[in-house]
Amino acid sequence: MKLTVLKEFLNESIQHVNKAISNKTTIPILTGIKIDVDSSGMTLTASDTDISIQSFIPMEKNDLQVIDLKQSGSVVLPSKFFVEIIRKLPAQHVEIEVKEQFQTIIRSGSSEIQLMGLDPEEYPIMPGIEESKRIQIPSDVLKTMIKQTSFAVSTSEATPILTGILWTIANGKLKFIACDRHRLASRETSIDTEEGFVLNNVAISGKTLNELSKILPDQNVLIDVVFADNQVLFKMSSILFYTRILDGTYPDTSKLIPQSYQTQLVVQTDDLVDAIDRAYLLSREDKSNIVKLVMRDDQTIEISSSSSELGKVTEDLTTIRLTGELLRISFNSKYMLDALKVMDSEQIHIGFTGAMQPIIIRPDENASLLQLILPYRTTG
Amino acid sequence: MKLTVLKEFLNESIQHVNKAISNKTTIPILTGIKIDVDSSGMTLTASDTDISIQSFIPMEKNDLQVIDLKQSGSVVLPSKFFVEIIRKLPAQHVEIEVKEQFQTIIRSGSSEIQLMGLDPEEYPIMPGIEESKRIQIPSDVLKTMIKQTSFAVSTSEATPILTGILWTIANGKLKFIACDRHRLASRETSIDTEEGFVLNNVAISGKTLNELSKILPDQNVLIDVVFADNQVLFKMSSILFYTRILDGTYPDTSKLIPQSYQTQLVVQTDDLVDAIDRAYLLSREDKSNIVKLVMRDDQTIEISSSSSELGKVTEDLTTIRLTGELLRISFNSKYMLDALKVMDSEQIHIGFTGAMQPIIIRPDENASLLQLILPYRTTG
Repeated sequence: MKLTVLKEFLNESIQHVNKAISNKTTIPILTGIKIDVDSSGMTLTASDTDISIQSFIPMEKNDLQVIDLKQSGSVVLPSKFFVEIIRKLPAQHVEIEVKEQFQTIIRSGSSEIQLMGLDPEEYPIMPGIEESKRIQIPSDVLKTMIKQTSFAVSTSEATPILTGILWTIANGKLKFIACDRHRLASRETSIDTEEGFVLNNVAISGKTLNELSKILPDQNVLIDVVFADNQVLFKMSSILFYTRILDGTYPDTSKLIPQSYQTQLVVQTDDLVDAIDRAYLLSREDKSNIVKLVMRDDQTIEISSSSSELGKVTEDLTTIRLTGELLRISFNSKYMLDALKVMDSEQIHIGFTGAMQPIIIRPDENASLLQLILPYRTTG
Repeated sequence: MKLTVLKEFLNESIQHVNKAISNKTTIPILTGIKIDVDSSGMTLTASDTDISIQSFIPMEKNDLQVIDLKQSGSVVLPSKFFVEIIRKLPAQHVEIEVKEQFQTIIRSGSSEIQLMGLDPEEYPIMPGIEESKRIQIPSDVLKTMIKQTSFAVSTSEATPILTGILWTIANGKLKFIACDRHRLASRETSIDTEEGFVLNNVAISGKTLNELSKILPDQNVLIDVVFADNQVLFKMSSILFYTRILDGTYPDTSKLIPQSYQTQLVVQTDDLVDAIDRAYLLSREDKSNIVKLVMRDDQTIEISSSSSELGKVTEDLTTIRLTGELLRISFNSKYMLDALKVMDSEQIHIGFTGAMQPIIIRPDENASLLQLILPYRTTG
């Protein structure tokens, strides 16, 4: 293998695939990045077995020669050092030459780096994915859906399935659900699917989807998502992102969501975020995060928290609308802030069905996003 | 105590004094910030016994009323929560009222915060400083001198005096020295002093001076520095920064610096930094940080590092000037990078007196700054 490649392209590809490298891997070959070069271009691959990322560098782009190929071939290079050194090379062009026993020489300007490469034959083969189940979704919509749900996945390895975001598709709607037993986040969007296209019980690690989010382009381009038996493949223009589907059956959460409300509150989102944020500061010192909401009348609510050591925070808030029974309810302020911060709406609607029933938070004019928080049982 | 103060002024003062709060303090009252208010203004004080910082807020500034005083008084408020909540208050004005048993009410907009204050009588009194020894130094010069030397102080508590920067004054020159037994950084500057003004053996913690640096204004304003028996006071326009002088006698480092050189090298600073940075990346993986410099001829030097596991980095560099015997020398690349990064000069001069003798790095045209690194004894 011998070629010259533009540093900028190589560096961008490395940054993408590097997200799949785990520091914890016990498989030595997976600490490396695999490089394959042939007459079509250069492919970089990295994997931690849960996630695999491939990035492709074309021979040329917009009439710019990106790669000057001398000889095809493959090698695996130790990722940690490779990632850092490529970024710091002095010249625009990087020559990579693989010699016997995978010894690799990287030249750029007056720098010469010799690296001990590994045998690419030892590198695991990417999973074959049948393209039977396949959807398209705009990149920016996918990013937003991940942001609006991923924070609510469980971090407990005791229930691995709840560390994932559940994807379901039915009647032309794609829905994400994340739930950690104390709160639930759900978001849906319309997608173009064939008549009768249904997807059930596909849960993908929330952490993995956050990694994917960092690679997804900000522009409104369509991403192909291919579902296989135990793998999902996200196809971007020059990147393939493979991840496995979590084992197990995702619990039915549909019954958690109340069908009607006893009390309905509409407030300015920013005002509520700021008030709860201040109450949260104090409640955090007590390690409880408990904040209390008291509805004084249909125009005023009071947000408060107290710490036996420090003192008390009291916030008065004017409602936009408050109908139904006046309630006193306590909840985890951190969970409420997480939910409010992804609302993307000037006003929000909060529905209550009693002091011990789930609290439902929605943008005032948008039914596609829903956040649920279980209240705390407190005295007084 | 009762007053209203502009949030912006209060917040800035809190941020300044908060740098003296230590999480590790075992003295409960020192977890708080002391507030004193009288007809002249508001004074905030924080201390960890090594450092004490006082910040003053005037009644008015540039015709703007900053404080509206209702009643003088003092209180100590728990710093951690106080610092965060003030920054997040909703309105421009903050009312602070101290009631019985130092219970404190903070009001701003529709927020009300009750805090358990502590008795200001329990707070330690600031050290009295006689103004006998006093110099003035421009803030920007002091900042630069700290930056150019503080990285070289020892981090080992085994030799506390070496964790400080030594200040000496003689013949109208102020000199800083930092030394950790493997390297030395020194910088001097001319200052206006009385005839015969001498300062010896004043070592101030490098960490403390870095904290001071964050508070020092960027502009070219004069800072008063007052030296007492075991304390130094830095006086800025509205801030007093007290710190103690380290116990012990600072070692004599003057004999470490060679008087003449066997080999002298001048190179472009950026080129050398970049080359050593790449070699450092590899040497770091071996945990040795060892980089080798080989002078091939008077126009070319080679910088290299190697790791038995990863490979080798080789860098060729063209000299601007190289006179004397051609040497091979090894050194700690991290130390060299630390020294080069504070050079502030396009070209640098490196003096050698042999492969096992100190390496001296200076800006090419400026004798006020000097960095010394001891080489490594290596084979080959």
